[in-house]
Amino acid sequence: MQVHIGNALAEHSPIGVPRSELGTLDERVAAAADRIEAGRKREEHGYAALNLPERTDPSAIEAAVAEIRPAETFLSIGIGGSALGAGTITAALDGDGNTRVLDNVDPAQTASLLDELDLASTALNVVSRSGKTAETLANFLVLRAAFEQAGVDWTERTLVTTGESGPLRELANRHDLPVLDVPDGVPGRFSALSAVGLAAAAFDGLDIEAILEGGRRAASNLSDSLFDSPAYAYGATMYALEEQGADVAAIMPYAEGLEPFAEWFAQLWAESLGKDGRGQTPARALGVTDQHSQLQLYRAGPKDKVVTLVRPRDRPSVPIPETEHDSLSYLGEGDLRELMAAEFEATEASLVKAGVPTIRLEIEALDETGIGELLYTMEAACVMAGELADVDTFSQPAVEWGKETARELLSGNRSLSEGTDLVVSGDKRRVETNER
Amino acid sequence: MQVHIGNALAEHSPIGVPRSELGTLDERVAAAADRIEAGRKREEHGYAALNLPERTDPSAIEAAVAEIRPAETFLSIGIGGSALGAGTITAALDGDGNTRVLDNVDPAQTASLLDELDLASTALNVVSRSGKTAETLANFLVLRAAFEQAGVDWTERTLVTTGESGPLRELANRHDLPVLDVPDGVPGRFSALSAVGLAAAAFDGLDIEAILEGGRRAASNLSDSLFDSPAYAYGATMYALEEQGADVAAIMPYAEGLEPFAEWFAQLWAESLGKDGRGQTPARALGVTDQHSQLQLYRAGPKDKVVTLVRPRDRPSVPIPETEHDSLSYLGEGDLRELMAAEFEATEASLVKAGVPTIRLEIEALDETGIGELLYTMEAACVMAGELADVDTFSQPAVEWGKETARELLSGNRSLSEGTDLVVSGDKRRVETNER
Repeated sequence: MQVHIGNALAEHSPIGVPRSELGTLDERVAAAADRIEAGRKREEHGYAALNLPERTDPSAIEAAVAEIRPAETFLSIGIGGSALGAGTITAALDGDGNTRVLDNVDPAQTASLLDELDLASTALNVVSRSGKTAETLANFLVLRAAFEQAGVDWTERTLVTTGESGPLRELANRHDLPVLDVPDGVPGRFSALSAVGLAAAAFDGLDIEAILEGGRRAASNLSDSLFDSPAYAYGATMYALEEQGADVAAIMPYAEGLEPFAEWFAQLWAESLGKDGRGQTPARALGVTDQHSQLQLYRAGPKDKVVTLVRPRDRPSVPIPETEHDSLSYLGEGDLRELMAAEFEATEASLVKAGVPTIRLEIEALDETGIGELLYTMEAACVMAGELADVDTFSQPAVEWGKETARELLSGNRSLSEGTDLVVSGDKRRVETNER
Repeated sequence: MQVHIGNALAEHSPIGVPRSELGTLDERVAAAADRIEAGRKREEHGYAALNLPERTDPSAIEAAVAEIRPAETFLSIGIGGSALGAGTITAALDGDGNTRVLDNVDPAQTASLLDELDLASTALNVVSRSGKTAETLANFLVLRAAFEQAGVDWTERTLVTTGESGPLRELANRHDLPVLDVPDGVPGRFSALSAVGLAAAAFDGLDIEAILEGGRRAASNLSDSLFDSPAYAYGATMYALEEQGADVAAIMPYAEGLEPFAEWFAQLWAESLGKDGRGQTPARALGVTDQHSQLQLYRAGPKDKVVTLVRPRDRPSVPIPETEHDSLSYLGEGDLRELMAAEFEATEASLVKAGVPTIRLEIEALDETGIGELLYTMEAACVMAGELADVDTFSQPAVEWGKETARELLSGNRSLSEGTDLVVSGDKRRVETNER
């Protein structure tokens, strides 16, 4: 794994990091790295996540998944950190392609999923640490009823991934369901390299031991200097850029399979670092597609962004056949991977030329080891950025008020009056038009 | 269609719009509305897009699609504005579900698509105004060769959507392919309500006349006052919020089917308004899912965001069965649509409580008319915001340098040296570790 931070320096961008400040920054990195190592040793809340590649037992995951294996489709029901890791890993890798994620409570989506699924060959993985997450439990209750109505025994095909106690744990005990543990001390958004992120991968036929090996490789690359550790190079540079005014963290993987990775990164970064009035706003993009969408703004809009470009160095070859048309001859006898590489490098250069700081992340290939290395590196980078910014990286207190209010609205104990002022209605106007 | 702008006022947020300034803003809206109407009358570049619902001929689209109809899968090859409209409309609506979009040149994706497709029952729609878009043409050349290799006559199953001249137009003439016109004077990101966005919808069995009717309904709601026109209420409020410091435009539809709509909006907003050192950065989110991801940042991070919440008022019913567990009883005998509504309203209130400006957009239902109305409204809003900001809404000059550089890299006429400084490599360190 390589992290290129040269284009994030002040010699390239008005919001870049002055080269002269790198020394001081690296001293702070050393102190933060000590704090992180101490937290890992004591398995402190949050820091414990960085021990997952060594702690997670792949055979326990394989065994639990084997209990529901005769199924053809593996449907994970979860939301946020209970869904994004699994979706990211299975989308990035070329598995059997029979895993699905239900992470919303849109009745149109759940209804169409029920239409589509053959319940007799579907297994469920219900994922919630507390066992009480409203959205996850609501969908589980709907799915369970659908199984019963279809005459399919849901207890034969339901895996539960949850914490030590709570309604889901009790349900699993009562019905003797296979259970995987959400590890203690690991916030959901840092749980991709545990059973939470790996059960779907195991069902999908992927080598989860190799994913963990990628994580261990990234862990072995942590050090007390940003010049020596890809994760800390990324975390410290992102922190320093935010201090210079890079309020937007655009993340732009050049690989279709990494589109959900951008979503995973957006949760990791926003929920961990978005507090105390600070925190970069993640903006998700996809190369090369978003060159035709977001690049205009990135180059010519406000100078408030850092763009992280991510790619695997190795890709399959797909030759581009010759064309009869002269103006397209530069394409002919090339290869899609060369086109992708040229567009990646040209976009990077075009951002640098426009004074936009960029960071390049490269993994060797989009395989099990590569994705494990990438996810771990980003998690450790986020912890480093949180230490430097002095925020409480592992909490998310600001979401509680909304959760509580939704519960009160549902049970009829509250009403809201917001948003009723200044409603501009097209419908009213249409009626007037019709009456003319 | 309704637009709620009350929560974007200064009485709710430190970056809200002062109520006392609405009068002056509305005078500027009136002048801009005049300019827009004049542009529409003269069919000027860009403004012509707002005439599409009246100008687009649905029967021509149906006829062209009928020529390749025996196919089971309809693969659109395009990128940016040539892809996002079609993908947005087909994802939002419940059609036959057999349309696909190829809008990237990732060799891993194209190879896996070729593995998966039954070419004998696949039709192509190649979409590029210039007929020269590198990514689109490269993929077309690959697909065409695959057809030939499979012994399938590609000329029997290829529809071309292009401008008046160029390589694709010549190809269509040479092989007598059905052709749809990319309308004159309409930038790609404003072309959803033309053949560019509607051919896939027609193949998918959707009522494209009803989509256009939705657009006409939204057009009939344009007026010279923001208090009277949902589109101009949205565009003017977003402009005024940017002036107050809302540099991030978070867009959060509460409907799975509208996830691509957020991507379409992100292109429309970024590429039209991101110039001259200004322009809000679109941040795509999805309700309720991203309450568990982005909401922490939106509430507790920097006060630099406006959050646009979008929903259909009408949704299907999916009852939540009773549960045996007391702590979840607030869910039982409810309905997913009530849960979705409670979460929407609680999230809106939680943002207002945190001082974050919000705007609510509501359509009646996620159907043909609703999506036509929504897309047109956003386009007109964007044109209004561009007038008020005095930018050249319909150009995208900043992307040219990168395109040219990629071409030069491919033909070997250029090399780049950017990004070679300060490369932090995990791989090197790993080698050292192994040698110890």
